[in-house]
Amino acid sequence: MEEAKAMLRKVFLTENEMTFPVSGTGSAGMECCFVNLVEPGDEVVVCINGVFGMRMAEVAERCGAVVIKVESEWGRIIETEQVAEALKGRNPKLVAVVHAETSTGAQTPIEEISRITHEAGALILLDAVTSLGGIPLRIDDWEIDAVYSGTQKCLSCPPGLAPVSFSKDAMKVITGRSSKVQSWYLDINLLAGYWGGNRVYHHTAPISMNYAFHESLRLILEEGLESRWKRHLDNHLALKKGLKVMGLEIVSQEGHQLPQLNAVEIPDGVDEAAVRGRLLSEHDIEIGPGLGPLKGKIWRVGLMGETSKKENVCRFLNAFGRILNDQGFRNETEAAVAAANEGGAL
Amino acid sequence: MEEAKAMLRKVFLTENEMTFPVSGTGSAGMECCFVNLVEPGDEVVVCINGVFGMRMAEVAERCGAVVIKVESEWGRIIETEQVAEALKGRNPKLVAVVHAETSTGAQTPIEEISRITHEAGALILLDAVTSLGGIPLRIDDWEIDAVYSGTQKCLSCPPGLAPVSFSKDAMKVITGRSSKVQSWYLDINLLAGYWGGNRVYHHTAPISMNYAFHESLRLILEEGLESRWKRHLDNHLALKKGLKVMGLEIVSQEGHQLPQLNAVEIPDGVDEAAVRGRLLSEHDIEIGPGLGPLKGKIWRVGLMGETSKKENVCRFLNAFGRILNDQGFRNETEAAVAAANEGGAL
Repeated sequence: MEEAKAMLRKVFLTENEMTFPVSGTGSAGMECCFVNLVEPGDEVVVCINGVFGMRMAEVAERCGAVVIKVESEWGRIIETEQVAEALKGRNPKLVAVVHAETSTGAQTPIEEISRITHEAGALILLDAVTSLGGIPLRIDDWEIDAVYSGTQKCLSCPPGLAPVSFSKDAMKVITGRSSKVQSWYLDINLLAGYWGGNRVYHHTAPISMNYAFHESLRLILEEGLESRWKRHLDNHLALKKGLKVMGLEIVSQEGHQLPQLNAVEIPDGVDEAAVRGRLLSEHDIEIGPGLGPLKGKIWRVGLMGETSKKENVCRFLNAFGRILNDQGFRNETEAAVAAANEGGAL
Repeated sequence: MEEAKAMLRKVFLTENEMTFPVSGTGSAGMECCFVNLVEPGDEVVVCINGVFGMRMAEVAERCGAVVIKVESEWGRIIETEQVAEALKGRNPKLVAVVHAETSTGAQTPIEEISRITHEAGALILLDAVTSLGGIPLRIDDWEIDAVYSGTQKCLSCPPGLAPVSFSKDAMKVITGRSSKVQSWYLDINLLAGYWGGNRVYHHTAPISMNYAFHESLRLILEEGLESRWKRHLDNHLALKKGLKVMGLEIVSQEGHQLPQLNAVEIPDGVDEAAVRGRLLSEHDIEIGPGLGPLKGKIWRVGLMGETSKKENVCRFLNAFGRILNDQGFRNETEAAVAAANEGGAL
């Protein structure tokens, strides 16, 4: 347990004492952060540019929060100015934002949002489900007060745990609450007794998961965070290059595209579900559909953790290009694969 | 998923449609039942004869319930008359009771409590964490409305999931709530969309755990529920016989002792922690200490699922008897092991 905590701190780039895996999947991590930080009537600013921002608003409301929504078009980032606007004349307890929106492939820059949040006297809560281990994420440098992630994205561990970390300021709020945390299972005041030095029994830990988590962290630190971030970026650029040769674009906001989650445009006249079906049944490759307003407009191609490999990019492009050709979207599949394989600048 | 649900119904002995594993450990199953069934201000009768009854009261209160406590001495069962007394002149929504108290080794008979609960117009909620797969548990015959369990007790699966089942009456309450369930992660109204036919995305399932769960259910049905219950009982009786030869008793209420959790008295003058320490370090056998008022008075010896084996009973008695001899509690260890090995009536 101490090793897992120490390694997780290194992956989160934090010195926060209260850094450990919650015994549930990523959404349990989200709920853990909100139920501990929010008391009924608290004002919470929630930034929404996809499925997970919407989920945060829903979870915050179930904690009795008064939610102020900051919304961007799906596929675009949350701009610092939008948050600044929402903070004007308000005194919220918390600002919640998604770092890497898995539903759209957009990566919101966090540092400035964190700065203005603290200027307004609020805490900042970050969804890092898809960012942890895939792109730069610096909890202490960015002064993030609460963060949750999942194990099955860029950590390449089975799903089932939600790594979390809380700053000293967040812990002050949690230990100083006037009401009990509505969830006994996720109450940090109780979990601190188990993950702290005394190992006070709270609930039976999902121990097989905890061992898997320990090993995934070990592998990440063996590779090195910087190398891992670079690998994700390189393979994203290779994919993007190949798609360009095919005549396809990544449609999330230029300059803020996630390397690990690629939102690929669906050309006119192509049956997007049939393409996904053939990729899965004939090539054992699963890609995701668009969600919400992006349904039918994008495919979501993951290159996360162990799967972010040049070999996978080329295998995908080869299968994908041929299926698109069959569907009437003419493209130079071999040239696309060759361009991806060559790598380098676009 | 359909196979797991079908097998779980067979192990719970229920036809309840809403029968599936919650993505968290047993305590998440407890919380799932309470957050879905209780709305703020609801009266809930909670039966307390150990740690887990206390936990139920705590969880119910965090849901805003008005809790009426029915308490028995730790180690004894909840008597039907106690529940009847609590129901007099009251109209609670829910009666919650622990079937097999892991902290004390007592097994409360449920059928009559269920009958009088329904007569009073309330639903009955059962903690079956330690009973499922180890002793007779008949959800439909006993007309249980909501039940939760854990995977790591008599199912012999890794910890990490909480099997639950809800009756039609419970589902009517859950779908007809006037307020939203306070937990998004555990909201049955949403989970029904995922575990139902449409597989509507809710949260990422802890899929490695779900496969392990599937396999554990398959093994249980291969053995047969009745045979499994008999195996647990036989090995408990063998242990009890061996302990008797040593001059030791199982101290939970006679006639209601759990086969899978044996509360063994600590003789005067014996250092109970030293005994546990030597069992673990020298023999790779872990037994539990007493909890709460039973701390320093009992050891808790588990014989659950795969570990409930004659061979394990004899190994334990052999190591345990010798360590007790070293501690000055003179006993005929070899005769005790022989008596256990012989088995049969006490």
